[in-house]
Amino acid sequence: MKENEERKEWEKIPSGAQQIHEKNIAPLDTASAPPRPHGSAYMGNYAAPPLEKIRVAMIGLGARGMALLRILSELEDCEVVALCDTREEARRSAAVELRDRGKAEAASYGGSEDAYLYMLERERPDAVFIDTPWELHARMAVECMERGAHVFVEVPLATTLEELWTVVDAVERTQKHCMMLEEVIYGRHELMFLNMVRQGLVGDLLHGEAAYIHDLRDRTMSSDAGGVAWRVQHYAGRNGNLYPTHGLAPVAQYMSIARGEDTFERIVSLSSPSIGFSTFAGQTFPSAHPWNNTDFLCGDMNTSIIRTRLGRTILVQWDETTPRPYDRKNLIQGTAGVLADFPLRVIGSFVPDEKDAADHSWYTGKEAWDDLYARFDHPLYRRLGDKLAPLSPRVAMDYIMLYRIMESLKHGTALDQNVYEAALLSAVGPLTEKSVHEGGTPQIFPDFTRGDWQHTKRASYLSTGRTHLRRS
Amino acid sequence: MKENEERKEWEKIPSGAQQIHEKNIAPLDTASAPPRPHGSAYMGNYAAPPLEKIRVAMIGLGARGMALLRILSELEDCEVVALCDTREEARRSAAVELRDRGKAEAASYGGSEDAYLYMLERERPDAVFIDTPWELHARMAVECMERGAHVFVEVPLATTLEELWTVVDAVERTQKHCMMLEEVIYGRHELMFLNMVRQGLVGDLLHGEAAYIHDLRDRTMSSDAGGVAWRVQHYAGRNGNLYPTHGLAPVAQYMSIARGEDTFERIVSLSSPSIGFSTFAGQTFPSAHPWNNTDFLCGDMNTSIIRTRLGRTILVQWDETTPRPYDRKNLIQGTAGVLADFPLRVIGSFVPDEKDAADHSWYTGKEAWDDLYARFDHPLYRRLGDKLAPLSPRVAMDYIMLYRIMESLKHGTALDQNVYEAALLSAVGPLTEKSVHEGGTPQIFPDFTRGDWQHTKRASYLSTGRTHLRRS
Repeated sequence: MKENEERKEWEKIPSGAQQIHEKNIAPLDTASAPPRPHGSAYMGNYAAPPLEKIRVAMIGLGARGMALLRILSELEDCEVVALCDTREEARRSAAVELRDRGKAEAASYGGSEDAYLYMLERERPDAVFIDTPWELHARMAVECMERGAHVFVEVPLATTLEELWTVVDAVERTQKHCMMLEEVIYGRHELMFLNMVRQGLVGDLLHGEAAYIHDLRDRTMSSDAGGVAWRVQHYAGRNGNLYPTHGLAPVAQYMSIARGEDTFERIVSLSSPSIGFSTFAGQTFPSAHPWNNTDFLCGDMNTSIIRTRLGRTILVQWDETTPRPYDRKNLIQGTAGVLADFPLRVIGSFVPDEKDAADHSWYTGKEAWDDLYARFDHPLYRRLGDKLAPLSPRVAMDYIMLYRIMESLKHGTALDQNVYEAALLSAVGPLTEKSVHEGGTPQIFPDFTRGDWQHTKRASYLSTGRTHLRRS
Repeated sequence: MKENEERKEWEKIPSGAQQIHEKNIAPLDTASAPPRPHGSAYMGNYAAPPLEKIRVAMIGLGARGMALLRILSELEDCEVVALCDTREEARRSAAVELRDRGKAEAASYGGSEDAYLYMLERERPDAVFIDTPWELHARMAVECMERGAHVFVEVPLATTLEELWTVVDAVERTQKHCMMLEEVIYGRHELMFLNMVRQGLVGDLLHGEAAYIHDLRDRTMSSDAGGVAWRVQHYAGRNGNLYPTHGLAPVAQYMSIARGEDTFERIVSLSSPSIGFSTFAGQTFPSAHPWNNTDFLCGDMNTSIIRTRLGRTILVQWDETTPRPYDRKNLIQGTAGVLADFPLRVIGSFVPDEKDAADHSWYTGKEAWDDLYARFDHPLYRRLGDKLAPLSPRVAMDYIMLYRIMESLKHGTALDQNVYEAALLSAVGPLTEKSVHEGGTPQIFPDFTRGDWQHTKRASYLSTGRTHLRRS
């Protein structure tokens, strides 16, 4: 691509990041919750009427949309009926995927960013998957629910508190599912930790650690990967933890956040200087390249601390722009033990006796892992074992997530994740922006459940068990 | 020990932790610095007149004092002339250590907590080592300097901002050295990282991570270890990061904090619930034991974030009361690489080519470590190599520290650590107490140098090199 074309490409992507940032740093009361409108109902344990077959539409056919399409097209009683993307070549590739799998042709919608509205009117899908740039999530999710579809949205659910409230209100008004596609809670290790925590093996939960540390400089910036340039715009215009959910969602589940036991209360956040992207751009692109003429606002490493209502703490980090190796931390710490990942390592009285307790080091390494899998793999992971065997760990997460969605929709049971969890996890984005802007000042989480988290049950697959603080 | 005696033992230890806590959470302006008194002088690069022989006195002969005594009694041109402790058996053990090494007998002072004052008057030592409970450090350090001795104080230097200012002012008034005995900066890996940072191998510094995670429940609480019961009193009465310096001092050195380049600007802090000690006491001691009748205020895991003047961030954690394995983190992250420890692991272009760069994982394991030592061991570590070979890594740190102190005093050169660094690192204690008490509100660091950090040179052994942010 020539430089001029590159510049045009860049200018074609109005992510509105700067406007999002201005909204998020405004001096508003983050904790305020307007009363629930008349006729709306709390949806924390909602189960929709069962469906025999699920007619699915997809909006957004980038890398994530295609990854989900490949799995959805293989699932029983799931029919992909419509494909929607502004880019014709993306729709064509998706159609090829379906044809190669011997599936019926899906209707194709494009041409404008609003083509999905026509699609919703004409196809009347049961469920819509939204895999578009972040700034489009909220609006598209609301439109889908208003037109009678359950909706499944990529992380984060939305980028401002206002949008998050709009989505929550739409769920409560339309009585439709809105689930965030947080696949990481279905990772083998995440499921195993959940199982161990529910068995009480780490005692009373005290502290967790979550991260999304992933060197994406090359993938996000390189001109071949044009499809994620909108994401770079967010880094240019905003400063906080813009992508918190992959690390945080599993830790939130261990603590039963927004599910009867505990919920997020406040967050403090500080960002490092922002020089990773500009350094990389300087080394990689000619000086006239737009990325060598952009001021990047977003600090390379954002570090935040959440405090929950029960006083537990959670460290949350985000870094996509330095050479630090991949890490989601996935650490949960209690009075009786600690479970952590990257690499998988644990400590507690469940570690075999032959290991000298006095040495007080992590139980880790190939043999330890096999022992842990054998004893503590989650029942859900075991149940789907045959189907997961040929898949990479990365694809297996998506598979379990989509399998569980279809299973729940078919049986008319509650989904594993509700919209309130999605909103709470996604609120970390705007709240960290505000905290960073104010020099680390604590920000209070909105209670998107309006108090109803206290009588919300855990998702069915999460089983029961004690993790709460002992009250003396 | 019988229960009654245990209770008496406990009551005999008035650490004043509660009063310290009340001072530290008072709504004062932490950043305010009174003008430097007339006749005082900035001591950031101070070098004292050279000494041919160093006459040393020791106050406090617990585990730390004895560890230092063993090394000091072996060092050339260092003579231990006085031993001071309220406990007669401790003085006797120390005397035996000296006799076993064929050293001259040292004068013995005890009987009351003020015995050290008589010792100072009569023995006129050149240098005093203070290894007493935290709450005694500041008062004793000031008394030593007022009586003409250089003073070397265990971590932390003091427990309140008021005390820290008192010590700084005493140094500037008396023109004596006051160095905190922070031995961890002399660890092999810490020295090696410093060497690599100074060579520019990790690029512009962005972020660091520091911790003191050490399961000390058994050691601190068990009744045999009576000598550290005063420390448990601090955990009962205070809540913050009470022991920050071991993890933080090396990271501060990488960033040249308070040494011309950068300094700490603010800190935010949150603590987890406090149930580790009480759970342990319940499992370990009879119900009538004083530790089963104490409310512990201090959260088990304290997590804090520092922001520096250059906008860098440092994660700081402290946990001595849960089963989490030992960890000081010791992580330094820049635009070109990351160095981390526990276990030692690095990434950056200095990693050998044969390792596939695309796999983007840590360079670690026995072979990697040997390669790193061979290429990057610090010149100071190499210089003392023969002397360190028979020592454990733990003792080697202390050895290098004491060797460097004696070397600097003999040659009349500046010490490796000045009182301003000691005060800044120790200020993390009171500032985190205040932040935790105020729900994570940012606290501004005092500038103990009163602006003079900007023209303070790095310590001589730290060599030169670039670590500062590129300004475009």
